[in-house]
Amino acid sequence: MKPWSGDGRPIFINEVGPRDGFQVESAFVPTDEKVGLINALSEAGLSKIEVTAFVSPKAIPALRDAEVVLNEIQRNPDVVYTALVPNVRGAERAIESRADELNLVMSASDSHNLSNLRMTREQSFSGLMQVAGVADASEVRVNISLSCAFGCPMEGDVPEDTVFHWCERFIEEAGANGVTLCDTTGMAYPSQVARMTEAFIARWPKTELTLHFHNTRGMGLANIIAAIDSGVTRFDASFGGLGGCPYAPGASGNVCTEEVVHALELMGYRTSINLDALMGVSRRLPSLVGHDLPSQLLKAGKRLDLHAPPPDFAEIRERALARNMPS
Amino acid sequence: MKPWSGDGRPIFINEVGPRDGFQVESAFVPTDEKVGLINALSEAGLSKIEVTAFVSPKAIPALRDAEVVLNEIQRNPDVVYTALVPNVRGAERAIESRADELNLVMSASDSHNLSNLRMTREQSFSGLMQVAGVADASEVRVNISLSCAFGCPMEGDVPEDTVFHWCERFIEEAGANGVTLCDTTGMAYPSQVARMTEAFIARWPKTELTLHFHNTRGMGLANIIAAIDSGVTRFDASFGGLGGCPYAPGASGNVCTEEVVHALELMGYRTSINLDALMGVSRRLPSLVGHDLPSQLLKAGKRLDLHAPPPDFAEIRERALARNMPS
Repeated sequence: MKPWSGDGRPIFINEVGPRDGFQVESAFVPTDEKVGLINALSEAGLSKIEVTAFVSPKAIPALRDAEVVLNEIQRNPDVVYTALVPNVRGAERAIESRADELNLVMSASDSHNLSNLRMTREQSFSGLMQVAGVADASEVRVNISLSCAFGCPMEGDVPEDTVFHWCERFIEEAGANGVTLCDTTGMAYPSQVARMTEAFIARWPKTELTLHFHNTRGMGLANIIAAIDSGVTRFDASFGGLGGCPYAPGASGNVCTEEVVHALELMGYRTSINLDALMGVSRRLPSLVGHDLPSQLLKAGKRLDLHAPPPDFAEIRERALARNMPS
Repeated sequence: MKPWSGDGRPIFINEVGPRDGFQVESAFVPTDEKVGLINALSEAGLSKIEVTAFVSPKAIPALRDAEVVLNEIQRNPDVVYTALVPNVRGAERAIESRADELNLVMSASDSHNLSNLRMTREQSFSGLMQVAGVADASEVRVNISLSCAFGCPMEGDVPEDTVFHWCERFIEEAGANGVTLCDTTGMAYPSQVARMTEAFIARWPKTELTLHFHNTRGMGLANIIAAIDSGVTRFDASFGGLGGCPYAPGASGNVCTEEVVHALELMGYRTSINLDALMGVSRRLPSLVGHDLPSQLLKAGKRLDLHAPPPDFAEIRERALARNMPS
């Protein structure tokens, strides 16, 4: 089956903006606004929402209200509420706040892992193992996100063997329920995505695989369709296209949720998301973060949001038709 | 064969920036700069360049130097130099200036044709017939571009029958050598593109088919790959992502040439374009047009343009490794 026509096939979107987007913003989005946005996202039909991160408030002050946000949102039973946790303390806080899933992160690239997490990959992995143990004891799901799975902005290509080495340890040693392959700085390209996701699914067909793309070089949607063509059904995306990476200057944000939904629904995929409601949520963002958003869809509108003809259109038509009359 | 891997298949890019891009700019790009840009594009390996438009200097003052530009550029025998002509007078001027091809334009949508060309579609077509006659007498190639082939910003969906009705008349009545289906305001989506281009190629396999996409809603590259998957090998693109449409406010420009080349070359398609040279040309544009460009690739660099690690990286690594030492 060609990937261009969705034929009603379901696609599940994980909205990462409240965590991955807000964490790089200099403005603090007020807690009640965060709660309101997440509630609206739940109503709009997102499958999963990465609500916040249980990190040190000193490291990421933008998410210092993690407990309050996770406790105050209205839980929709159809939505998985996930939270990023960097360590056992974070895991305990997230579980205490009734996160449905813990999202753990490390990088496939040594340089990126050291720069971002200040640990070697082995040190990060032993931390993940401890967190996975805590989650397991509380029967909370674990997803592990592998940054730089399609390339590192400092090292360049990351060998696929290295990527799969870490996936294997996530799944077979840490017992992860899901793995997210992250294109942290927009280096992924469609043939690479198709090849790697096919290999992943062949090897671990029962693991929930999510793909996380950035639109840094304009390849986000093409990468998503390449992944769908290889059997992937789960994608991260960020409302308004929020997000970025401090280690790759000029890198733009995550693929934009409303653009992904708009395109996939037009193609006949079923995201179960109310696009108008979602766009309404994203429209609240510029005033909260204090800047314009990368989302092109918010600027241009949906493909059938029509424009008025020029004000003198009736006159133009009349004059054109008059040329056909016998003089 | 899957479209994700190009396997050396050739793709031909028509650079439309010097015409389609510059015509909507308020700044006049000096003639010698235009000539220098077009010469550099020729050297970079573009297959075709839409050099200018032979229109009234009052209507489009930005292109008032059409003759001079077409006469002063260095002709590369591997490059087709095409020019937009709206009428017989324009055709005569373009032929006099040794254009290799005339590009004629009308719209599949009545409202858009009236708004843009101030004629009914029948009136436009009879004009095109006259121009095609002039071109034929001089043995100059004719390409006809059909605007709004994937939707009209004022009318919405344009029936595919209407699109093919005009294609039929272009090919069978006007004898066009090539047809360009234009997604003038970024309304095309991949399943639509796949369906329409397959139908076109099945019906007119000998006509040179070009696709013209805008990235207004983030679907540009996905549409290109969908078209490739249906057998299309020719695409319009604009350096820096210049371009726009006055009848669809908020609509961004054409797909960006350097982004298209970057993505397709990574996938293994052969565009025969020197990407570094092309990016060098695009980098000259902001100072000439007086604003930032939509091109994300110019901001972020190619996927393997690497970034330095943080300044304290050696220290971070040392501290991390020290944690492994017995204390």
